[in-house]
Amino acid sequence: MRSIYSLLLASLLLLSSCSSAEPLLVTKQAFSIDNFKTDNGQIIHPVKVGWEAYGKLNADKSNVILITHFFSGTSHAAGKYHADDAAPGYWDAIIGPGKAIDTNKFYVISVDTLVNANVYDPNVITTGPATINPATGKPWGLSFPVVTVGDFVEVQRHLLDSLGIKKLHAVIGASMGSFQAIEWAVRYPERVERLLPVIGTAYIDAWAAVRLERWAYPIKHDPAWNKGDYYEQGQPRAGLATAVAYITQDALYPSSFNARFPAPATDRAPHNDILAPFSAWQQLMEQAATRASVQDANHILYLIRASQLFRAGMGDNWQAALAKVTAKTLFLPATGDQLLLAEMSKQSVAVMNQDNATYAEIPGQFGHLDGVLNISAVADKIAAFLR
Amino acid sequence: MRSIYSLLLASLLLLSSCSSAEPLLVTKQAFSIDNFKTDNGQIIHPVKVGWEAYGKLNADKSNVILITHFFSGTSHAAGKYHADDAAPGYWDAIIGPGKAIDTNKFYVISVDTLVNANVYDPNVITTGPATINPATGKPWGLSFPVVTVGDFVEVQRHLLDSLGIKKLHAVIGASMGSFQAIEWAVRYPERVERLLPVIGTAYIDAWAAVRLERWAYPIKHDPAWNKGDYYEQGQPRAGLATAVAYITQDALYPSSFNARFPAPATDRAPHNDILAPFSAWQQLMEQAATRASVQDANHILYLIRASQLFRAGMGDNWQAALAKVTAKTLFLPATGDQLLLAEMSKQSVAVMNQDNATYAEIPGQFGHLDGVLNISAVADKIAAFLR
Repeated sequence: MRSIYSLLLASLLLLSSCSSAEPLLVTKQAFSIDNFKTDNGQIIHPVKVGWEAYGKLNADKSNVILITHFFSGTSHAAGKYHADDAAPGYWDAIIGPGKAIDTNKFYVISVDTLVNANVYDPNVITTGPATINPATGKPWGLSFPVVTVGDFVEVQRHLLDSLGIKKLHAVIGASMGSFQAIEWAVRYPERVERLLPVIGTAYIDAWAAVRLERWAYPIKHDPAWNKGDYYEQGQPRAGLATAVAYITQDALYPSSFNARFPAPATDRAPHNDILAPFSAWQQLMEQAATRASVQDANHILYLIRASQLFRAGMGDNWQAALAKVTAKTLFLPATGDQLLLAEMSKQSVAVMNQDNATYAEIPGQFGHLDGVLNISAVADKIAAFLR
Repeated sequence: MRSIYSLLLASLLLLSSCSSAEPLLVTKQAFSIDNFKTDNGQIIHPVKVGWEAYGKLNADKSNVILITHFFSGTSHAAGKYHADDAAPGYWDAIIGPGKAIDTNKFYVISVDTLVNANVYDPNVITTGPATINPATGKPWGLSFPVVTVGDFVEVQRHLLDSLGIKKLHAVIGASMGSFQAIEWAVRYPERVERLLPVIGTAYIDAWAAVRLERWAYPIKHDPAWNKGDYYEQGQPRAGLATAVAYITQDALYPSSFNARFPAPATDRAPHNDILAPFSAWQQLMEQAATRASVQDANHILYLIRASQLFRAGMGDNWQAALAKVTAKTLFLPATGDQLLLAEMSKQSVAVMNQDNATYAEIPGQFGHLDGVLNISAVADKIAAFLR
């Protein structure tokens, strides 16, 4: 979905991309772990991930903010790789010099997750089913271990350890990024001073797990998927594009979806031919196919699974795990979110220490995507929270 | 979905089913039209549909209320066929002697739609792709014409004409039933005195049309579907059950869905096996397969298409068509509806004559299904509206 964000950001001419004459220029860096042991006890050898950073690490390494990315996202949270890039990173509206997450003060760091969706984006470094397993010389495919949000956090911890960073001024993430931020605060309470889950939740319930499974269905039912063994024959492109289309629709509030796609009344063929598609469906699929061109179908399935499995602490009792969080916390759900409902943030805050945890909603027209496209609406709240 | 309603109704022990010692007993009747011309100019020869009625037609035939049914429903709106039926018709809470739609006063009539989902329910009579086409001696399959909500209305009109009923005291329908009710008031303003769209809308937008297409996807991608030509080999059962599962989820508010299905945290296998399903998914699919056992996959596709094509007046301008409605109107959306949002009812009312059209929300925990399961919450409003 990085591509849809880029498109939307560009098309909306967000002020953020015009406000600074000299864009923040960033470079992707690589990090590897020789033998990474997953939460379920498997070994991945090696793990390689990409990361980027904005601002300067201070002498005592106390000014670090970790940004954890969403399902279809990458570590490209802000800035541009080249001055003429079409769009900056997805949260450029709030990350940069003088912005809410002020890179004049903070060293802001972001890491590509394991099983990142955008494997074929040249700016993404990740390890997952599409990666060659050195033990076999072939892509892992479905022999890649099931990985969790906890594993994403452990990879990030290894990177921070390698940089000598012991404390985080804050962990901030949107959507699946909120899962990682919360898991950080649960696993390492002594290392996380502030927690900011945006359009997030501390638990995936049966309803959300089934919704996520509905994204997996078109991939698993594309004959080209071949139980995940397609790296020689080519991807299940139709199934993958359909999954991306469903993700797109579920992340948008209906009225903002309708503003982008033609109404059924504009079509004649569906009145006469039961198999004729509506233009809205066709256009959604075409756009999704373009976005999916840098993605891998198995990676999407692993991201779905990591999301489905998430609950704070990854055990039987997310409420008890969350109650132990000591970080100062601000949940920022989007009012119109129909994917991770604002009430999931409310339920999460409700079990936390009430002296520490607060809640405010992001207004807007985009639903779930207001956590990205309209994040500037809560820029002041974020800035105040970080002070 | 009739079955889930029955199950839910039974499991909830709705007061309505206990309140009257002697249940209203009803009989299914059959109606046929020799040559029915569809909106798109095709001939269906013959059309046969089932219908039932509650109460008594008065001498001047002025006490008729037409109930139009929802997507997965049938004409069984109230009463029981046999005293020992497990559950009464879906709106038995509001239809019956002394109830909001008082069968001591009104003659209440309900008709199975064309392409009704529940072809193999012995109490349903319908005509659609699963029907034998007398011209070929084989099921119509996809050679059956695309039919619209307008066609459903015309079949009902033929039946009312045959009974000598010229005026309707009211037309009342839930969800897809609201589409038919609205189309009645648009096409025959002189025949419709009151219009009551429940959990409804006067238009399907791009967002809803695409959501509906997502119900069709599992059927069309089940190899057993065979482009609709499966009547000899047997139904695409997996695809059909998946469609029914999606309909079920989309009609329920998340919290009521979660009350029925186990949380992901209860499952161990999905942590270790990327292909292991969650219990919530499995149980939803099993229940859907049971409900789907009386349904036909092609009929579901035709109902999806009829729903996607709906807008008041079936032309280019639903607002202009709706503005001409003269019936006294009450829209009753459900507050938590995430399938046909309450704001769709609001938008519909907004273009109507403001002296005639009002709006009130159905509270409840079930979302879209509150229009069925919690209809008693607005029983007084309905009774007052009909007076």
